Amino acid sequence: RRSGMGRAMGLAVGLLLGLLLVPAVLVSTSFRRGAPPSEPTPEPAEWELAWGAVPEDSLWPLPQRLRTSGRQLQLAPGRFQLVHGAGSSLGPGCGLLEDAFRRYYEYMFGQSRRRQRGHRPLGVRGEPELWQLQVVVESPDPGCQSYPHLASNEAYHLTVTDPVAILKADEVWGALRGLETFSQLVYEDDYGSFLVNESEIDDFPRFAHRGILLDTSRHYLPLKSILTNLDAMAFNKFNVLHWHIVDDQSFPYQSIYFPELSDKGAYSYDHIYTPTDVYLVIEYARLRGIRVIPEFDTPGHTQSWGKGQKDLLTPCYSGEQPTGSFGPVNPILNTTYNFMTKFFKEISSVFPDAYIHLGGDEVNFDCWKSNPEVKEFMKERGFGIDYAKLESYYIQKILDIVSSYNKGYIVWQEVFDNKAQLKPDTVVEVWMGKNYAHELSSVTEAGFTAILAAPWYLDYISYGQDWKKYYSVEPLNFTGSEKQKKLLIGGEACLWGEFVDATNLTPRLWPRASAVGERLWSNRNVTDLRDAYKRLTNHRCRML
Amino acid sequence: RRSGMGRAMGLAVGLLLGLLLVPAVLVSTSFRRGAPPSEPTPEPAEWELAWGAVPEDSLWPLPQRLRTSGRQLQLAPGRFQLVHGAGSSLGPGCGLLEDAFRRYYEYMFGQSRRRQRGHRPLGVRGEPELWQLQVVVESPDPGCQSYPHLASNEAYHLTVTDPVAILKADEVWGALRGLETFSQLVYEDDYGSFLVNESEIDDFPRFAHRGILLDTSRHYLPLKSILTNLDAMAFNKFNVLHWHIVDDQSFPYQSIYFPELSDKGAYSYDHIYTPTDVYLVIEYARLRGIRVIPEFDTPGHTQSWGKGQKDLLTPCYSGEQPTGSFGPVNPILNTTYNFMTKFFKEISSVFPDAYIHLGGDEVNFDCWKSNPEVKEFMKERGFGIDYAKLESYYIQKILDIVSSYNKGYIVWQEVFDNKAQLKPDTVVEVWMGKNYAHELSSVTEAGFTAILAAPWYLDYISYGQDWKKYYSVEPLNFTGSEKQKKLLIGGEACLWGEFVDATNLTPRLWPRASAVGERLWSNRNVTDLRDAYKRLTNHRCRML
Repeated sequence: RRSGMGRAMGLAVGLLLGLLLVPAVLVSTSFRRGAPPSEPTPEPAEWELAWGAVPEDSLWPLPQRLRTSGRQLQLAPGRFQLVHGAGSSLGPGCGLLEDAFRRYYEYMFGQSRRRQRGHRPLGVRGEPELWQLQVVVESPDPGCQSYPHLASNEAYHLTVTDPVAILKADEVWGALRGLETFSQLVYEDDYGSFLVNESEIDDFPRFAHRGILLDTSRHYLPLKSILTNLDAMAFNKFNVLHWHIVDDQSFPYQSIYFPELSDKGAYSYDHIYTPTDVYLVIEYARLRGIRVIPEFDTPGHTQSWGKGQKDLLTPCYSGEQPTGSFGPVNPILNTTYNFMTKFFKEISSVFPDAYIHLGGDEVNFDCWKSNPEVKEFMKERGFGIDYAKLESYYIQKILDIVSSYNKGYIVWQEVFDNKAQLKPDTVVEVWMGKNYAHELSSVTEAGFTAILAAPWYLDYISYGQDWKKYYSVEPLNFTGSEKQKKLLIGGEACLWGEFVDATNLTPRLWPRASAVGERLWSNRNVTDLRDAYKRLTNHRCRML
Repeated sequence: RRSGMGRAMGLAVGLLLGLLLVPAVLVSTSFRRGAPPSEPTPEPAEWELAWGAVPEDSLWPLPQRLRTSGRQLQLAPGRFQLVHGAGSSLGPGCGLLEDAFRRYYEYMFGQSRRRQRGHRPLGVRGEPELWQLQVVVESPDPGCQSYPHLASNEAYHLTVTDPVAILKADEVWGALRGLETFSQLVYEDDYGSFLVNESEIDDFPRFAHRGILLDTSRHYLPLKSILTNLDAMAFNKFNVLHWHIVDDQSFPYQSIYFPELSDKGAYSYDHIYTPTDVYLVIEYARLRGIRVIPEFDTPGHTQSWGKGQKDLLTPCYSGEQPTGSFGPVNPILNTTYNFMTKFFKEISSVFPDAYIHLGGDEVNFDCWKSNPEVKEFMKERGFGIDYAKLESYYIQKILDIVSSYNKGYIVWQEVFDNKAQLKPDTVVEVWMGKNYAHELSSVTEAGFTAILAAPWYLDYISYGQDWKKYYSVEPLNFTGSEKQKKLLIGGEACLWGEFVDATNLTPRLWPRASAVGERLWSNRNVTDLRDAYKRLTNHRCRML
């Protein structure tokens, strides 16, 4: 009863098998892709050998450099410890790392029903025991109390051999990534023994900005959904939550200075994020090495702002008469800038990240064009009939406000396209699907930093394994100098909320976003779909 | 950051509002679509009036005839009763109805947090109180202990006026449908009062067979997912679970006679349906007036059968040599028919429904063509090189077996297309997307009963509100006489399992399948998308 497509096996079959498919005896030492580009790409035959035969078959995203041997070590859940290693600049005083130790212990051993039968002896096959994972953070300023940022060092080095494994990282953020990788190496065999292969891993991200966009305006997302998503992000080494928190449809952010914005602009009194909620999201993210960048998009996409803030939006006219409808933020009033000054002062203080996303996309000029006072203002300023100039005028003032609070900012590509005067450190997010490579060329040629979102709009769904499409994107495939390429700092998988709420967020986003996660973390030459399919199947099973 | 599509509001917004949007004061009597075709279709202006102003704004599927007034009645959760009415042929001895009373009481009042504050007085606005819903089942053989079947009478008549509402039905199945409708009429206002408008409803299904296909072979579905789906089906007045229980990928049905089929053919020992599981599904469905029609598809789609039943499948050849691969069921061996006789004896006894779905789709002839013994058999029988004749030969024998157990059968359209000799009472399910109207003409012209699935393959997903596409299908839009039209007994929404498992089943199927539910239940002239959108939004909210 089905077309040819019907016979394709689902991505998710692996999950139903319950256990990772790892054979009991491994004999070969294998080297994997992700080796430096100077090494030859492995031949297909080598992959045949590796198929289903090595524990890194469930690593995701694939580390940059990886070496494993067939030599297995056993872990006894009752004895195994995650500890601070000798010489580490961090100790029990680092709550972030202590919390991560507990979390990863639970991921590795907590799911096992067998553990509940009490203290079990090790398997009888005589493998040597791995007693500890010692975590050594080397920098004198390792970042335990601070927030992750764009320049955070996420590199780590992991050596797994008996009697103890060593995880070394410069900063605590690298230690978090290494803990995730270590937990992915540990597996449970059919007899309930926990095993890990002798391994050595040297790893670091390819791109510094690896984001997930969640949209809490089109549909409200309960706090639990957001936190669950942060867990999934950590499993995939994402490090930025781009929180598209408000939009035309609703204003769930509860402002301290302007509580009427959510009182009147949220879907209901319950569908808001209180200051405590926001703090919880930020702290939960920080503990996982994830930045929270809020987006307060203006001057368009602001219908919900108008409900709780009088005179903020532009009244639209039909001839001489106001229609009763409102357009974008009114850019000609001082009161607008007074409001924004105060509002962004709050935002700058509530959100610790060095960046705020200021939106600036899809500004519809029709309402501005209809308004006699706006037209008069255009004349006075000598803008003629070029409303992009008015938009730039507005944006420029917002950028100045936000700059004054020592924040950097990200804008959608139209702000660049419309030739707003941007400070050199502006980050431009490229979202339009058509010719995004050309846009990346233009943005970086002009010297701006760029983030790529265009090919990764995950709200656009279709039948079948579309993760392959996302996986096959090569972000640096655009025309430009080496210097330009360096200006592309990463990308984002965007899950817009028109058709997403708590009922379908997780299965719609994961593991599809995992494809983007590997693209942004792993080496450029990690592109084999068949190998990725196998690892992603196991990875999904583990995430579930 | 989005195309024009981006501005579309999601179908699901309603859910976030938490409460049904029903204003407190209603004054007009309204008549709704669903009236007999002889009545004039209401004018758009009338709909403007009705928009957001009548309680039946959340009825789904829309009853055939409906009249409500603005007169409101109050229900006191602590006092209101669902009871057997005077003259009913059913009483407390009917567990099915008692169970339904409890269930619908819970749906109407159980969710209310306010109820937990104890026995509350009625609202102070002085509405008259509705004390009871009296259910009167009139037939002397109302079906309480039996199973629903194709000819079950699901019609009911509901009168809501103080002091008691009366629900009359010929059979218990109609009472179940009426209880669902009554529960949809009751709403809670902003002050926690439960209200219902005076109403009169006369309702019956347009089509007798209204099915949902679930596929538990491509992905195993835990029992809980299947039961949850049966609840959702009852909310939408579906009455057939087409259980596509096994296929190439896995054989989760645990057979009593042939336990090796699932021992070796299921994804794992855990991923099976035991006899108890199957019984639970059938009984849970029966209590909701839902038939369970199992599909055991042969001779194709049977790879998983081969694992636990030696010599059942045809060995494929390359030249003179067996390749080690297997094709469809081997139609030339007596052992095949011995197996099928015993197997379908079990199936006929385990599943009480009068029908079994025998599949018969997508038989690939390549393997049969390669096998020397099959070729020899073709020669002996005088089939020439027409393998459709061999397929028909096989199907004919299976039909005879199943007939001998007094079961009817449903087959996919190829069995008809390939000109198998079918008994006149065969039901043909039309699934191929191209020219399905033409296929309906052919099938019914040949005098066979038909079920339509083709336009309702809900596993094919796409961006946006595709429920409108499913909703806009008119099943009787095919060329044929009145007699032919009567042979189309209904349709099915199919959710094939390649990309569906417990993580996404519910949000992927509902409320998209609700569109099919209304198409199969309500009057042909209920086609207004705007009205449907409004009701469906509220219906989704209630289902959640």
